[in-house]
Amino acid sequence: MTPAWTWVRGFGQVDLQSNVVTGLLIWVSLWAAGWAVGLYATIGVLVSTLTAHLLGGDAKAIRLGLYGYSGCLAGIALVVNLGAHVSTLVLTVVGAVLCAILTAALNTFLAPHGLTALTAPFCLVSGVMVLGAPSFARIWHGAPDSARAGTVSAGTALTWNQAWHAFFCNVSQVFLVNSWYVGLIMLVGLAFAGWAVFAFTAGGSVVGTLAAWALGAPAQLIGNGIYGYNAVLVALALGAVLLEASPWSVGYALVGAAASVGLTASVTSLFTTFGGHTFTWPFILITWGFVLAAPAFSRLGKSA
Amino acid sequence: MTPAWTWVRGFGQVDLQSNVVTGLLIWVSLWAAGWAVGLYATIGVLVSTLTAHLLGGDAKAIRLGLYGYSGCLAGIALVVNLGAHVSTLVLTVVGAVLCAILTAALNTFLAPHGLTALTAPFCLVSGVMVLGAPSFARIWHGAPDSARAGTVSAGTALTWNQAWHAFFCNVSQVFLVNSWYVGLIMLVGLAFAGWAVFAFTAGGSVVGTLAAWALGAPAQLIGNGIYGYNAVLVALALGAVLLEASPWSVGYALVGAAASVGLTASVTSLFTTFGGHTFTWPFILITWGFVLAAPAFSRLGKSA
Amino acid sequence: MTPAWTWVRGFGQVDLQSNVVTGLLIWVSLWAAGWAVGLYATIGVLVSTLTAHLLGGDAKAIRLGLYGYSGCLAGIALVVNLGAHVSTLVLTVVGAVLCAILTAALNTFLAPHGLTALTAPFCLVSGVMVLGAPSFARIWHGAPDSARAGTVSAGTALTWNQAWHAFFCNVSQVFLVNSWYVGLIMLVGLAFAGWAVFAFTAGGSVVGTLAAWALGAPAQLIGNGIYGYNAVLVALALGAVLLEASPWSVGYALVGAAASVGLTASVTSLFTTFGGHTFTWPFILITWGFVLAAPAFSRLGKSA
Repeated sequence: MTPAWTWVRGFGQVDLQSNVVTGLLIWVSLWAAGWAVGLYATIGVLVSTLTAHLLGGDAKAIRLGLYGYSGCLAGIALVVNLGAHVSTLVLTVVGAVLCAILTAALNTFLAPHGLTALTAPFCLVSGVMVLGAPSFARIWHGAPDSARAGTVSAGTALTWNQAWHAFFCNVSQVFLVNSWYVGLIMLVGLAFAGWAVFAFTAGGSVVGTLAAWALGAPAQLIGNGIYGYNAVLVALALGAVLLEASPWSVGYALVGAAASVGLTASVTSLFTTFGGHTFTWPFILITWGFVLAAPAFSRLGKSA
Repeated sequence: MTPAWTWVRGFGQVDLQSNVVTGLLIWVSLWAAGWAVGLYATIGVLVSTLTAHLLGGDAKAIRLGLYGYSGCLAGIALVVNLGAHVSTLVLTVVGAVLCAILTAALNTFLAPHGLTALTAPFCLVSGVMVLGAPSFARIWHGAPDSARAGTVSAGTALTWNQAWHAFFCNVSQVFLVNSWYVGLIMLVGLAFAGWAVFAFTAGGSVVGTLAAWALGAPAQLIGNGIYGYNAVLVALALGAVLLEASPWSVGYALVGAAASVGLTASVTSLFTTFGGHTFTWPFILITWGFVLAAPAFSRLGKSA
Repeated sequence: MTPAWTWVRGFGQVDLQSNVVTGLLIWVSLWAAGWAVGLYATIGVLVSTLTAHLLGGDAKAIRLGLYGYSGCLAGIALVVNLGAHVSTLVLTVVGAVLCAILTAALNTFLAPHGLTALTAPFCLVSGVMVLGAPSFARIWHGAPDSARAGTVSAGTALTWNQAWHAFFCNVSQVFLVNSWYVGLIMLVGLAFAGWAVFAFTAGGSVVGTLAAWALGAPAQLIGNGIYGYNAVLVALALGAVLLEASPWSVGYALVGAAASVGLTASVTSLFTTFGGHTFTWPFILITWGFVLAAPAFSRLGKSA
């Protein structure tokens, strides 16, 4: 019998962690980010996990939160981009159901290649829903403030204030939240999952910030964590979860993290053309590529 | 020896049916839609089937019409979007040849994943040809009337007249035809393939119409079948062909049918940016996703 | 022990040839195209090959130049599209590293399907970098002259002068170079790889030119090799390398070559919308499709 509280692991699995305390602290941090984020994320995790349970998904995967994390992010993405309306609530429920189905679909498709779905179900479901929303009168109530990009100053000189904000916001932006203290609570939560998890989260954040600065990204965006959250996820995934630990894999993970910064700009340029959203695509694409390549290189090994 | 008349099954396979009477009635209905649609569809099926035969494709697949259906749709898509010209005739022949090759390619690629090509060869070949056409002086003679989108009234209140038109046009729009009596003839044809085929076609059409209305789509587009034809195909494919029959799979098929309505808006928004065409992509993507996911859920089983 | 000079094979592998003389002559021809092209191509091959060596990639693949060719093209694409700056030099090194990783990733992913990466690592890395570049102040120094498309005359009547230029430029444009004598040197180099390689290169160039003319492409673009370089690669790959030689496979390869001409226009239209680059995508897509389809047709066989 699955203990009822295991659904909270869905929050931690966004960062690829099954630790319950990690999940719990991330859950708390999302409520700290605002009632809407907390509520929609919670609905997303619950509905998505419940869907998998009702359809008869693998009990262990459900217990580990693997059917919940995409629903969590989908709920946040929908309320941020469509606003808090009854229609958005309904869409979140439908989106969470589809996340559960797509999680199964992608994992089945990718398993022969030694890959997992990562956050792709979330990116697909949310991207499709946000893109289609303006076509439907009962769904679309105009872009909410939270979805409006303000004017960005072009300056590339990074202040100390922007630098430390970036460090924490790179962590919170994984959940589409721009708030240093939310990032701080999440980082504390990730520390409970082990020192390697903490180190690669922090290291990914530093590398992401440095790479964005070196490339000459607008300092304001760096400070908001826009350029670094994919680097955090890549470093975490490659460094602490998916590859065998070794000095080579540490370097490999950090190269991947830095590459995700450049890819973030490219994906954003591409998606801006047709109204798509970057979400965590750079993380997904880099991680899939780097994990696929690993077995071809004797210096790298996949985590057992 | 393959009886010569088996090519007519290609028309039925657009709706995933190998029944000869179904194919024959759909063929008749296409001529009822107009000489151009009838002629180009016929050329498409014949050339595509013949190509597979000449290249030495699997005799059983050819006999079942599995090398013909994409050519059928490609022929219609080309004449609708490029107009009835000699150059379009040549393109239809080339397109049908490429459909046969792409059908083999996609089926080979997808087989290890338990999927089939569905109408993707048609979508790819037609989409690519229509997109590239304006670059070539001998191909492009300006957009024909049939390819021009009229002004759409934004009203979302569905009249009775629009509702019953939607029911039949959802069936005919699978073949890019906006005509209730063509849809009616097709529905009669599908009834010959069995009560389940009929029920899921009709059910998919109803669910598609309801979902589009609930989302607040323009009533005029709903009445023309624009929002429902993918729902018809999804319901047919998941409910009557690809999954094991059970109450769960019925629900699953109808959820997929409803989801395809939302996806139709998203794909159309995306494709409008660069001049692509929605065609049956929403059906293909939803069906691939839902079939891939099925084995992960004990409540669902794949059809033997 | 790998002889040091084997890296030169990376230049020949762009045309799918491992012959050292072929690689050497192509290398020479790239310097003949200009110091920037020669230098960046050389850096690309060296860094990409070295990366694979350091990470412990398969020694035989490295020796055959299979880790070098994408780096070669990436170096050229970056200097052509971003200009010769120190930042472009750094990007070329990073891009070459990523090409090596992506080569391994794609080959691993495609191996179960009997496909190889072809030039996709180059297309992905360069496409992403060029797309993202304008977002970064330290990378972007404005579009260089080499990346600006001049006004194209719409005339479709092909002069003799344009026709023979097309024949050679179709070969040089594989390397993004618009120069008949560079194409001539390359063609001589390819002749060293065997008569079939020469014949399919020349044949692909002729078919590509004819198809573009028949479709009504602007004669000026045909003369510059813009419509024919993918046809050269498709003919070479399908005719001389990947499929079993037979009259059927010759026809199949030439149909593929002609199809790549049409696809070139479509891909260019699609990519223009969001600032992407056509590069060798048409070749890759056609070749993957046609190779995938081959085993389904008894008239065709895959090369052992």
